[in-house]
Amino acid sequence: MPEHPEIAIKPRDVMPPAASTLPAPYYVDPAYFRREMDALYAGMWVCAGRIEQVAKPGQYFTRDLLGESLIITSNAAGRVNAFYNVCRHRGTRLCTEHAGTFAGSIRCPYHSWTYDLDGRLVGAPHMEEVPHFRRDEYPLHAVHAEVWDGHIFINLSPYPQPLLAQLGDLPGKFRPWRMEDLRLGHRIIYDVQANWKLIIQNYNECLHCPNLHPALNKLSHYLSGENEPLNATYMGGRMDLRPGVDTLSTDGTCPRAFLPGLSKEEVRRVYYYSIFPNMLLSLHPDYVMVHTLWPLSPGRTINICEWLFHPRELARQDFSASDAIDFWDMTNRQDWHVCELSQAGIGSRAYVPGPYSNREDLLYAFDRMIVELHSGSHR
Amino acid sequence: MPEHPEIAIKPRDVMPPAASTLPAPYYVDPAYFRREMDALYAGMWVCAGRIEQVAKPGQYFTRDLLGESLIITSNAAGRVNAFYNVCRHRGTRLCTEHAGTFAGSIRCPYHSWTYDLDGRLVGAPHMEEVPHFRRDEYPLHAVHAEVWDGHIFINLSPYPQPLLAQLGDLPGKFRPWRMEDLRLGHRIIYDVQANWKLIIQNYNECLHCPNLHPALNKLSHYLSGENEPLNATYMGGRMDLRPGVDTLSTDGTCPRAFLPGLSKEEVRRVYYYSIFPNMLLSLHPDYVMVHTLWPLSPGRTINICEWLFHPRELARQDFSASDAIDFWDMTNRQDWHVCELSQAGIGSRAYVPGPYSNREDLLYAFDRMIVELHSGSHR
Amino acid sequence: MPEHPEIAIKPRDVMPPAASTLPAPYYVDPAYFRREMDALYAGMWVCAGRIEQVAKPGQYFTRDLLGESLIITSNAAGRVNAFYNVCRHRGTRLCTEHAGTFAGSIRCPYHSWTYDLDGRLVGAPHMEEVPHFRRDEYPLHAVHAEVWDGHIFINLSPYPQPLLAQLGDLPGKFRPWRMEDLRLGHRIIYDVQANWKLIIQNYNECLHCPNLHPALNKLSHYLSGENEPLNATYMGGRMDLRPGVDTLSTDGTCPRAFLPGLSKEEVRRVYYYSIFPNMLLSLHPDYVMVHTLWPLSPGRTINICEWLFHPRELARQDFSASDAIDFWDMTNRQDWHVCELSQAGIGSRAYVPGPYSNREDLLYAFDRMIVELHSGSHR
Repeated sequence: MPEHPEIAIKPRDVMPPAASTLPAPYYVDPAYFRREMDALYAGMWVCAGRIEQVAKPGQYFTRDLLGESLIITSNAAGRVNAFYNVCRHRGTRLCTEHAGTFAGSIRCPYHSWTYDLDGRLVGAPHMEEVPHFRRDEYPLHAVHAEVWDGHIFINLSPYPQPLLAQLGDLPGKFRPWRMEDLRLGHRIIYDVQANWKLIIQNYNECLHCPNLHPALNKLSHYLSGENEPLNATYMGGRMDLRPGVDTLSTDGTCPRAFLPGLSKEEVRRVYYYSIFPNMLLSLHPDYVMVHTLWPLSPGRTINICEWLFHPRELARQDFSASDAIDFWDMTNRQDWHVCELSQAGIGSRAYVPGPYSNREDLLYAFDRMIVELHSGSHR
Repeated sequence: MPEHPEIAIKPRDVMPPAASTLPAPYYVDPAYFRREMDALYAGMWVCAGRIEQVAKPGQYFTRDLLGESLIITSNAAGRVNAFYNVCRHRGTRLCTEHAGTFAGSIRCPYHSWTYDLDGRLVGAPHMEEVPHFRRDEYPLHAVHAEVWDGHIFINLSPYPQPLLAQLGDLPGKFRPWRMEDLRLGHRIIYDVQANWKLIIQNYNECLHCPNLHPALNKLSHYLSGENEPLNATYMGGRMDLRPGVDTLSTDGTCPRAFLPGLSKEEVRRVYYYSIFPNMLLSLHPDYVMVHTLWPLSPGRTINICEWLFHPRELARQDFSASDAIDFWDMTNRQDWHVCELSQAGIGSRAYVPGPYSNREDLLYAFDRMIVELHSGSHR
Repeated sequence: MPEHPEIAIKPRDVMPPAASTLPAPYYVDPAYFRREMDALYAGMWVCAGRIEQVAKPGQYFTRDLLGESLIITSNAAGRVNAFYNVCRHRGTRLCTEHAGTFAGSIRCPYHSWTYDLDGRLVGAPHMEEVPHFRRDEYPLHAVHAEVWDGHIFINLSPYPQPLLAQLGDLPGKFRPWRMEDLRLGHRIIYDVQANWKLIIQNYNECLHCPNLHPALNKLSHYLSGENEPLNATYMGGRMDLRPGVDTLSTDGTCPRAFLPGLSKEEVRRVYYYSIFPNMLLSLHPDYVMVHTLWPLSPGRTINICEWLFHPRELARQDFSASDAIDFWDMTNRQDWHVCELSQAGIGSRAYVPGPYSNREDLLYAFDRMIVELHSGSHR
């Protein structure tokens, strides 16, 4: 192993001989995709967006999940609600915009059936002429919604466990970042021609960094840091900033104040956590980056990337985040490119699983969990 | 019920408790689509266009039906013929233009096999060297074609009933409009991302008009008029023009003479008839609008909209129909938009049939007929 | 039969009564397509390109075959190698460019696994930390490659017969053209919406020439020349240049020297050979045109057309080949157009096999071979 005098390198456990990548069907077979969608994306809490996107009563945004259009909004009391975007009269989609604000109620553009912000049907023209009709039998179909530190999660299952049960010890772990105080500063949406798991796998190893991300590697050595063992609902670890580097940005300097509440150690590190199934949480000394994954097919995933900043910074006249956004946008695009190359190659008849190095430990653990999911389901 | 002093409102029968929209498979399942195509679009007379489109011998246009390209043309005697667009030699498509004029015969671009305007093979270079070859065994594959009041209908079944048997009492009902005298003035082709039945259902109720079509509702009150009970091969009704309104146009005035032959009552009304499976006939005091539907898939339908005028009007130097065309083009686009929203919403896992109001009586009757078709087929 | 005093017309055998075109499934059914791809495109030698495209060590180009991306390159000793474009680590595609030059080795863009030009793994960062890992177990997946007179052929089967066994007597037959001395002068890639067999059938008869290719027919009479009987792995024949015509070019003159080594008869003819499954070889007095077919689906084929010239001509300051290229580009496009019309028409429910003339003898023989392939496979 080469010498890296400036950084502390922790050796990783040696991979067992069987530690190799997953067979191709996990990435290309629609049956595997459906099982993952059913078990993980329909059965778990999925990160949908930020509380500040529904700050005002009736403010809403939509997300597409499993082919469903979903409306996320809030009522006058500030409670977050989520609904299927389907009118109870003749099935019409209620809103076509990706974001907006309902004027106190949700009105179908077809025959004006009208719902309040909790989804109750409050108007249905001419239905009063139908004696057996009862309004209270036709509320909007609701989807469960809960909030953790400003992040809105939704769950398509009828009786989900509480969000906190899924998150486990994460809320405690990330308490110092006080994410509920942060605000959305920027969003970039990527359309990635790759399986959602390839994006998670790419996110959880930095072995590719010296070759693919020279700029990142200059700011944070790819062998630095440490991973946690895989948890049932998340995995991740941290990397160290190099001496003299203040944050991940185009030049490593930090034009923003560090987030209040972080320790001396925490401001020297970047934390990378995959929160299953769809959230990639990257905590920096002065900002938080969140990717949410929205799989469309075995080989295509929409990736919504958002940058959160402290409102004091956002309020500054000279606020600019292009140093952080440009840095990550470049790095993201490098990552999606190799994810797409992997998706293309894994589809080949020549592809066979290849061996993992010790630096791909989280991937191997993640793969075991995915294999378990498919074999456990007996479908 | 609110007061509408200016219009006569006929109450409608109360819907039975079971009167709700169709389950999702009727709109999204390819098996349902195929059954409807086989039974209705391949088994019934389908309106293809107007006699004036083949006025000259050899003049032709093509239509796509059930994935088939069909040629509609006329011979020297003025008889309308329809053929599959397939050469009997090696299967080559004979014409690629949507409309044109054959110079006396139909010649294949590949090896010059040539057919007369009745489809008889009259030239086949070098086939005379093949002793067992007989030209009369290789006519173009014909499709039945008949004409009603200038409207050309085609039928893909080998032994169809006569067109008039399908039309029933419609020819008598619409005699006063003398549609055979009218001429095509304008055509707009719409590509609608919705099931063909959603377009028919949209066409046969005006409950959505006050909300979706304020301009139309200003000219013709949505509660006015009266529907006929569903007939085996068509359904429809009429609505009244409001006092002071002369026709459906951008401002309600009528810059054209009324059609000769209409009664005092008929010029105060607009008639809307769905003639199954693909013709929507809208008769106005001074013009006729015809939609023909061309389903491509469960979720996509080409809609060809044509406006017919009296030739005396068309011949006027100052003839303009933009008042009628612009009015309906706007109204059509509003309709296709909600049809597309319905198609999108009905595909949701959250969609369940919703209740019909008394004003959606024709839709419920139409739906019963469609359910019957699918259950009766036992396929 | 009309008189053609200037040309020698050989009558052809009379087609048997059963000689008609193939049923539609051969052109539209994915199951038929897969059988042909397995038996012919994965089981035979396929022409991929020219030796001059890999003249320098590490120079490469890629081709797509059966959904596989393949790399064709050469090592320092000039040996042609072909590899699946798939890294042995995590399956990533190694190169995304259609052509280029590797700098001595092939390096994966993801984690820098590196292969020499014979496909041996020579670098795998951090894998040295995995004690059970052995580099020599992870070479690139190779594809067989051989060369005939400068044409590179590849074969996806694990144990192919030698290329020369497939080519039979063709190398002797085309010796005089010394194709190994020729060099690639131009390439045009066509995307044809037709089954690959329609392109071969179109190529092997000139009955369509007077109608579709008047310019070609002016230079070379469509009834001239002679066909060989079908051989197991190729079919073809020759046509005569008309008196006063020197080659196939826009005006029939020949601005280039004839190829050295051709006989007096050979410079008066153009030879057209389909070398199964994907090479159409057209030998002219002064140049060679090669089409290679790359089927994508039953109804779509990529056609790469290349023109080869003598290097002495290519080296001339005033070299121009637009006369030959423009002539054939026009003729090619006419051909692909009717192939696409045939594909469209054959998909019709009205299509039934049509009769072949005596001038379509090679097509009938080719069809018999294809029928045999499908019935022999018992799949």
